[in-house]
Amino acid sequence: MPALSVTEAHDLIRSALIGSGTSAGNAAYFAQAILDTELSGLDGHGFYWLQFYCRHLRSGKVDGKAVPRVEAVSEVGFRVDAGHGFAHPAIEAGFRRLIPAAKAHGVAAMGVYNSYNAATLGYHTGVLARAGLLGIGATNAVPTVAPVGGRVPVIGTNPISYAVPAPGGEIAFLVDQSATAVAWTAVKRAADAGEPIPPGWALDRNGEPTTDAEAGLAGSMAPAGGVKGFSIGLLVEVLCAALAGGRLGPDQGSFTEDDGRPIDNGQFFLALDPDAFSRGGFAPAVTALTASIMAQDGARLPNARREASRERLAREGLTIDADLLARLRAFA
Amino acid sequence: MPALSVTEAHDLIRSALIGSGTSAGNAAYFAQAILDTELSGLDGHGFYWLQFYCRHLRSGKVDGKAVPRVEAVSEVGFRVDAGHGFAHPAIEAGFRRLIPAAKAHGVAAMGVYNSYNAATLGYHTGVLARAGLLGIGATNAVPTVAPVGGRVPVIGTNPISYAVPAPGGEIAFLVDQSATAVAWTAVKRAADAGEPIPPGWALDRNGEPTTDAEAGLAGSMAPAGGVKGFSIGLLVEVLCAALAGGRLGPDQGSFTEDDGRPIDNGQFFLALDPDAFSRGGFAPAVTALTASIMAQDGARLPNARREASRERLAREGLTIDADLLARLRAFA
Repeated sequence: MPALSVTEAHDLIRSALIGSGTSAGNAAYFAQAILDTELSGLDGHGFYWLQFYCRHLRSGKVDGKAVPRVEAVSEVGFRVDAGHGFAHPAIEAGFRRLIPAAKAHGVAAMGVYNSYNAATLGYHTGVLARAGLLGIGATNAVPTVAPVGGRVPVIGTNPISYAVPAPGGEIAFLVDQSATAVAWTAVKRAADAGEPIPPGWALDRNGEPTTDAEAGLAGSMAPAGGVKGFSIGLLVEVLCAALAGGRLGPDQGSFTEDDGRPIDNGQFFLALDPDAFSRGGFAPAVTALTASIMAQDGARLPNARREASRERLAREGLTIDADLLARLRAFA
Repeated sequence: MPALSVTEAHDLIRSALIGSGTSAGNAAYFAQAILDTELSGLDGHGFYWLQFYCRHLRSGKVDGKAVPRVEAVSEVGFRVDAGHGFAHPAIEAGFRRLIPAAKAHGVAAMGVYNSYNAATLGYHTGVLARAGLLGIGATNAVPTVAPVGGRVPVIGTNPISYAVPAPGGEIAFLVDQSATAVAWTAVKRAADAGEPIPPGWALDRNGEPTTDAEAGLAGSMAPAGGVKGFSIGLLVEVLCAALAGGRLGPDQGSFTEDDGRPIDNGQFFLALDPDAFSRGGFAPAVTALTASIMAQDGARLPNARREASRERLAREGLTIDADLLARLRAFA
């Protein structure tokens, strides 16, 4: 497999985005997010999905030059119209208002609509945490999850993420997880490779457990912890569609079809200033909490693997499948 | 089993609270919440726990006459000191500020500290939804859950709840769930009854799955969906302890020992005005979302069972174990 330095990987991502029709201004934060994802070891969401982004740019499904509009609902509430462009420039533009608002008032919230796949949600909440805020984020997605007892998907894998700040612009820990037992990408990649999936990942069209990845894609994803996972995904749908104004799952454009139809999903972000509420108690409590986890053999902080991967790959460079590299270079 | 009308049940609850040292002003909202819990069919949390509340009043673990203090961090952020009293009067006092703030500014948040068990969390978020707000709430609890891979509990069952408003002061649906596979009460009651528990509910002291309820109480509760459930419980701990100022799980007073030591846990509530963000799109989207669930045979809305129980028991009256009734009457 070809190896790329961090700089080469960044250039590849940026030029594939720009070469397919993204404005330079819209490409910067997004390229950084894709690179960070790849460095984190989430290779299903980095280079792999970049080829879809580029195809969507070329088919007109997403407008790489859209200029997001931020509307203030109040001094602490923001609505961001992504204009059928990428989620990333819209989130970046919203954060420019959200972060100072949360610092001034203790809490602020924003919804993003007419948006696109947020990719690794934890990248965005990490930006809030590095600004000293407790960041919570959610995004809806094309429907793949049926209500427990039902068969028809009504919500997506609908991830939530939260990032806990530590003093000095650091992140104490970060969670980024789908409402499903596994990410949809894991089933898609197994199907692409013609491989079976473990039990507990997906259900077939009849709502029965399956180990056939194709049958799982045609059916539904199993929610994590049954009805409890579904309920978390349902909250994400309420926040991102009903409140933020993204389209409900079944009304969204497809992520896998090159049909030129916008996806128009929604995102929601909440930012809390820990010290406004805790009067300085936040950092010591987080330190004690993380210490109580790290002290146990076999336990680890939620983002420990991603952090280790980031350090290792920044040093060693990134590998990429030769065919994928060729496809991405062709987009540049 | 003795049967009680709704009025008789309310009188029983109120007089047990007041008879054990709660001020009349602090008893009203709490009695309503306990009654609502019992009507919802959550009998582990209604009459059953009331006897513990009364014992805690008498042992001095909780101050039934505490007057909560609400401090405004900003026009949209509130810190509520429950003063080692019940959570309910503190939450009620905080909501008097939180609700108008969320209506005026679109979003508001509050933390409660020096607090007590919030009992059925969904009662509180339901109050927010009936006021037309999307309510999200969380409470931490004495530690019963170990990090995945570890053995020592560091967080509690740490429930979250959200309630989705419908026009006319109604609740479209409501979720109230612990971060664990089942509520701790379910294991406690099995242990009290000398009965085994199903696999998947709890782990023993060595972190191994167990069907022995006593071994489960001595060990840890299994998180729902493994690491994903733990991560949700961890977010609750960050919100309720680190941010709101409740004590971290291991530093809390015991809920089961009559040692007179305050529990001092914390709660966190967020209220969002759906129309401020959605410009009227919220109600139609929620209607479409709920319809897509209810249209499926075998699927149901999250609170469907509680609603059905509430209607049935309001009509038929409530039953109560004769010994428990005698104990509660003795507190009155």
